[in-house]
Amino acid sequence: MSGAVANGIPEPDGAGQAGADGPGMRPPTRRYDYVTDGQEIYRRSFAMIRERADLSGLPADLEVVATRLIHAAGDTDIVSRIAASPDVVEAAREALAGGAPIFTDSVMLASGITRRRLPGDNEIVCTLRDPRVPGLAAAWGTTRAAAAVSLWGPRLDGAVVAIGNAPTALFHLLEVVLDGGPRPAAIVGMPVGFVGSAESKEALAGHRLADGSQVPWITVHGHRGGSAMAASTVNALATASELA
Amino acid sequence: MSGAVANGIPEPDGAGQAGADGPGMRPPTRRYDYVTDGQEIYRRSFAMIRERADLSGLPADLEVVATRLIHAAGDTDIVSRIAASPDVVEAAREALAGGAPIFTDSVMLASGITRRRLPGDNEIVCTLRDPRVPGLAAAWGTTRAAAAVSLWGPRLDGAVVAIGNAPTALFHLLEVVLDGGPRPAAIVGMPVGFVGSAESKEALAGHRLADGSQVPWITVHGHRGGSAMAASTVNALATASELA
Repeated sequence: MSGAVANGIPEPDGAGQAGADGPGMRPPTRRYDYVTDGQEIYRRSFAMIRERADLSGLPADLEVVATRLIHAAGDTDIVSRIAASPDVVEAAREALAGGAPIFTDSVMLASGITRRRLPGDNEIVCTLRDPRVPGLAAAWGTTRAAAAVSLWGPRLDGAVVAIGNAPTALFHLLEVVLDGGPRPAAIVGMPVGFVGSAESKEALAGHRLADGSQVPWITVHGHRGGSAMAASTVNALATASELA
Repeated sequence: MSGAVANGIPEPDGAGQAGADGPGMRPPTRRYDYVTDGQEIYRRSFAMIRERADLSGLPADLEVVATRLIHAAGDTDIVSRIAASPDVVEAAREALAGGAPIFTDSVMLASGITRRRLPGDNEIVCTLRDPRVPGLAAAWGTTRAAAAVSLWGPRLDGAVVAIGNAPTALFHLLEVVLDGGPRPAAIVGMPVGFVGSAESKEALAGHRLADGSQVPWITVHGHRGGSAMAASTVNALATASELA
């Protein structure tokens, strides 16, 4: 099985090698001093983040999102780059509780969303590998990531969108919405990189629909971002718990 | 289909909504000025990275890895944290060309590895969701991510390992190797976070096998790291091309 993520388990080879599979499986000799309880690691991590990061400039309902973003980035400095519309946490949480689907611009981001945190058995959809994408991208003169956004179709209405990779996907999404297309419940816009990333986030923060309103949004301004940060934001919007 | 990443395509609903699927599908009105050619975006990105980042302190064969790490992080400052054994690029490239499997500590990292860059149709294996993992973790008093490493078994010998999430997986891997277990060809050790992450990378950089040698390794010191950086490193080790 190649070209796919396998939960492939090596077969026991009977050689009795250390670390080999089989009934005699045993842990290696403990040589380092480290915390081995998963929930305790989470607890200590979030305690350290709250100790080190200055969250005072953030609205109360963004604190959990900010701590998870810092956790994903491994960097308290990221907090100064977080910006959001005032209604994004409430809007995303309500949509997810109601079973809204989550659209992502990359499979990696989709993989980072923790299913058991989702309140409404929400479907996670990434259309990047849809067979129609290369043809649409060529016909429209845009990237595959942008063309893939148009395949979300009317289900985009009321959905939660997370973009962690392609600035062109975020620009294209805004163009779909500004054309009077389906209106998502919330946009997590965190593409990463040096070409268009910062600009696409400014476009997100500055967009206005015909009635003067905005689609609720959250971003991390500048070049940084990525699938891990976008996924951690969705995980924080899905449920406020700071555990795994 | 819920609880899984779907390449789910919305059905046409015949409502003729903007952005909806169907034969009349059209792109939205272009409202922003952005580059829409994927390979041109890559070209410009890497040109900007080479212009902004100081790569002079790095061995020549690490330059491609460093530019891809910067690209994944959206941050030129990451370069000062990169450390590696002198043989890691050659060792990993040779192993991958020979068809070595790639073991990862998270499904997200596995998803971020670009299949078409892999030279040997290499299998990508993540055992985190193996049904034996929770029991082993409980019995051994360790995390699931660490227990999952032991399931790699003898196939770990000569493999490329990438860790982007759990410091405990990296500690456990080193303990398996130091016990005289299977010896991987190379370790990409980039767990993220505030509890154990920096320490596990120091352990990686400082480990010594019984014969005084090291398993070839590469890391990003400190709290930062993550699946995106680890995947980008594997992608750079797989082939030196700077395109997608």
